[in-house]
Amino acid sequence: MALEAVDINCDLGEGFGRWRIGDTEDAALMGLISSANIATGFHAGDPNLMDRTVRMAVEHGVGIGAHPGYNDLKGFGRRRIDGTARELLNDIIYQVGALREFARRHGASLQHVKPHGALYMEMAVNTELSQLFMTYMQTVAPNAFVFCMSGSATETAALEAGQPVIREFYADRDYDDSGSIVFTRDVGRPDPEAIARKVVRACKEGVVTTVTGTDIKVPFESICFHSDTLGAQEIGLAMREGLKAAGIKIIPVSELAKETFRRSA
Amino acid sequence: MALEAVDINCDLGEGFGRWRIGDTEDAALMGLISSANIATGFHAGDPNLMDRTVRMAVEHGVGIGAHPGYNDLKGFGRRRIDGTARELLNDIIYQVGALREFARRHGASLQHVKPHGALYMEMAVNTELSQLFMTYMQTVAPNAFVFCMSGSATETAALEAGQPVIREFYADRDYDDSGSIVFTRDVGRPDPEAIARKVVRACKEGVVTTVTGTDIKVPFESICFHSDTLGAQEIGLAMREGLKAAGIKIIPVSELAKETFRRSA
Amino acid sequence: MALEAVDINCDLGEGFGRWRIGDTEDAALMGLISSANIATGFHAGDPNLMDRTVRMAVEHGVGIGAHPGYNDLKGFGRRRIDGTARELLNDIIYQVGALREFARRHGASLQHVKPHGALYMEMAVNTELSQLFMTYMQTVAPNAFVFCMSGSATETAALEAGQPVIREFYADRDYDDSGSIVFTRDVGRPDPEAIARKVVRACKEGVVTTVTGTDIKVPFESICFHSDTLGAQEIGLAMREGLKAAGIKIIPVSELAKETFRRSA
Amino acid sequence: MALEAVDINCDLGEGFGRWRIGDTEDAALMGLISSANIATGFHAGDPNLMDRTVRMAVEHGVGIGAHPGYNDLKGFGRRRIDGTARELLNDIIYQVGALREFARRHGASLQHVKPHGALYMEMAVNTELSQLFMTYMQTVAPNAFVFCMSGSATETAALEAGQPVIREFYADRDYDDSGSIVFTRDVGRPDPEAIARKVVRACKEGVVTTVTGTDIKVPFESICFHSDTLGAQEIGLAMREGLKAAGIKIIPVSELAKETFRRSA
Repeated sequence: MALEAVDINCDLGEGFGRWRIGDTEDAALMGLISSANIATGFHAGDPNLMDRTVRMAVEHGVGIGAHPGYNDLKGFGRRRIDGTARELLNDIIYQVGALREFARRHGASLQHVKPHGALYMEMAVNTELSQLFMTYMQTVAPNAFVFCMSGSATETAALEAGQPVIREFYADRDYDDSGSIVFTRDVGRPDPEAIARKVVRACKEGVVTTVTGTDIKVPFESICFHSDTLGAQEIGLAMREGLKAAGIKIIPVSELAKETFRRSA
Repeated sequence: MALEAVDINCDLGEGFGRWRIGDTEDAALMGLISSANIATGFHAGDPNLMDRTVRMAVEHGVGIGAHPGYNDLKGFGRRRIDGTARELLNDIIYQVGALREFARRHGASLQHVKPHGALYMEMAVNTELSQLFMTYMQTVAPNAFVFCMSGSATETAALEAGQPVIREFYADRDYDDSGSIVFTRDVGRPDPEAIARKVVRACKEGVVTTVTGTDIKVPFESICFHSDTLGAQEIGLAMREGLKAAGIKIIPVSELAKETFRRSA
Repeated sequence: MALEAVDINCDLGEGFGRWRIGDTEDAALMGLISSANIATGFHAGDPNLMDRTVRMAVEHGVGIGAHPGYNDLKGFGRRRIDGTARELLNDIIYQVGALREFARRHGASLQHVKPHGALYMEMAVNTELSQLFMTYMQTVAPNAFVFCMSGSATETAALEAGQPVIREFYADRDYDDSGSIVFTRDVGRPDPEAIARKVVRACKEGVVTTVTGTDIKVPFESICFHSDTLGAQEIGLAMREGLKAAGIKIIPVSELAKETFRRSA
Repeated sequence: MALEAVDINCDLGEGFGRWRIGDTEDAALMGLISSANIATGFHAGDPNLMDRTVRMAVEHGVGIGAHPGYNDLKGFGRRRIDGTARELLNDIIYQVGALREFARRHGASLQHVKPHGALYMEMAVNTELSQLFMTYMQTVAPNAFVFCMSGSATETAALEAGQPVIREFYADRDYDDSGSIVFTRDVGRPDPEAIARKVVRACKEGVVTTVTGTDIKVPFESICFHSDTLGAQEIGLAMREGLKAAGIKIIPVSELAKETFRRSA
């Protein structure tokens, strides 16, 4: 698998009131990505920031995604909280609806939904939640994309339901041999050039080297990196340079041919 | 002005997690009203409760309204919090969007928006906020009704913008001579029959007696009472009986002839 | 083991702002208990309620205990949230300090600390947290009692540290064969007389019948019941009647001979 | 009035979870000040950060102060929220108790209390709140200092009650002709040298130039600057240099002769 085009997505709008995380302003990242996962107020984000971030995405032609998380500002949505699948779904609906209203206000529509942090990991292994989520998406947004980890329960449920689905490559995270990312509270300040090389190789060869030194296959359509990773802007710039040099285009998922993503189960 | 038909609206879904307010279950009120103002999580309400309340409203044919408030669970949205008009509008957009998504999930649409408590009072006197709110409504929901106090900045802005508007009569609150309601933290347990008589008189004669004993004019299309008022169910039953005896029909605002409400400024 | 005297503790102050849980007012329970576990604002409780509850406890001669929980109002502290032992300890210190300041204001001192809900269960199995907690208690309140489950890591750590410790009998919860309580979201409305018989038997014979019908030993010095259990007042009254009839006195733990509780490991 | 010695206080611990405000780490400021106002969780701060900040203050010999604010993370405590004096006092007691427990844990005691932001401004004009607060302080901490604005209701109430009181000079804020500070959401990045000159002149001559160009008298014993002001470290360094060059010592208020501060009304 050699990709001719790829999407780049990034979590944005992750402040709260006057607080900020990381050293990179969203404005510096908008020009480097094609899809934005916008925090929806439970783990980060607030209405003012959501409004501003959606407006900025519209201005840059960046695809707008809802980025719902656990209701845990203090833990930044990186802690799992018990809840039934129905309760977690209701939390997601609430947040997707809120973000969608800001998109509507600015004349845009919802391109995708990507759960955040521990909720992303929970949905990846929770078949009941993934299926309930797809039923909801089919009802209210059958053309919106769901971003997920390749091989996750989320992917399976999306394919079964016929919901458009995008698999991600995690540029600024390490992989283990199972193809899962190594969850960590602190990723330090990674080397932008090393990330760019990793990304280009993944696009061209479809493989990544894990923490044990093994190469594994990684099918994906979008590259994910995080605005709170230190040096996020340099990472974004290095990836763009690397992809350009390799002749790989950066295109939002909504503009990629839809048949690519409407794969059958 | 003698009304032949009137809407009855009530604030519902005002719990939070396992907490409740008042002595009346929402299920006991759904059959007594035609429009529900559903709490949207900032002053009361949570995603699970919003989902349940919307579903119940759909089942009862009750009009679904968003009931956004100040972000103040502890104060139940009855305390004013400083904010620019743009900030308050963003809080409202967030909440309306969240509620609307639950409506969409259950195959319903947004009938109306009614701000809660101190935010309702703030919008009533804040022309900038009222106008920004109507611009937003015109963009995203030009057919949804705005509930307000007669003579308020909210009413004026709605009429100017051409947004459908409904004026309320406050069944379980006292009026002062200016036509404003007397804001109080504790309304006690009012007499249902006295409220029913007050309501029927207001419908038939268009007047109410204020706290000083004066009669003032009160133009309205909907009657409001509160689920956290002690004895809310008895109040609802008494009002229905009274209205029925007076030959006045109870109809959701969305079914009343729209030309009635699209009044010109 | 036949007890001549026993403490009765109850969780109080479990409202939040205008919200309430259960059908029983704290004022109706204060006269029925000897120790109060007062909610400290993270899972329930707020500063106004803490002040009022502490004052009420002082007036009734009821021992004042801090009742810290997970920072989870919505889940009422009954959901586990990931955290290192040091982070959980800091949450506890914050809450104990807050409650203690209200006690100090009203001329009282801290009789005991009892974690709430999922945090109580977490400490019961988390040796590192239990030991860190006892180090803290030895530093700031070496004479305050720690309430715990018999056989828990909490008990072990308290005994090792020399911190006074009290074991509880759970009047309105079911036991499994391991001696642990069956954790449930909804206990319904239990029969007060059945609870009273269970309690008196436990005091006289030191045994309780589990959900499988087996009798197991239950060593304890205090009886716990919950203010949010439906019919809490009737349960408290029935227990008092039963204990009185059996000749067992009800005494706050601080008045029981301290040597009883300073058991060696 | 020419001061021979002065205290420097700064608001610290103003993060929340992973969020930060401003560009200066607390560790860079601890060596520059003599008293720390530590955020207590309502407008900023969390238990982990409080623990770390108190420990750091103890290590640096910096006086520990509680810095309670309005319960408003999103607004960073800079928005007024309605509340009775008794309710506001309860919020303060809760927060002071929490901070004090961390001090106790680290073998330190409470040097002072300084309300934050809008609560500081509210107490400055609210005589009932100031008097209730002093009654509380006299009961639980009669030797702790209260930091306030010269001429405020807070100062008057402290003097009447006999509570030790410290008046502040606001290094990184502008004064109006009434001697009040000009409240602003954004102070930009002020010039450290200009601030240092302003501070030294205030210490030596007891005057400051207001926004209208007038010189007014400013009696004070402590200099306040803010960790979220951009360039806070440079400001702190410049002030220390300026004070040193002027022969003025920097000493925590607890070490200054107490008779200086126990002034009579």
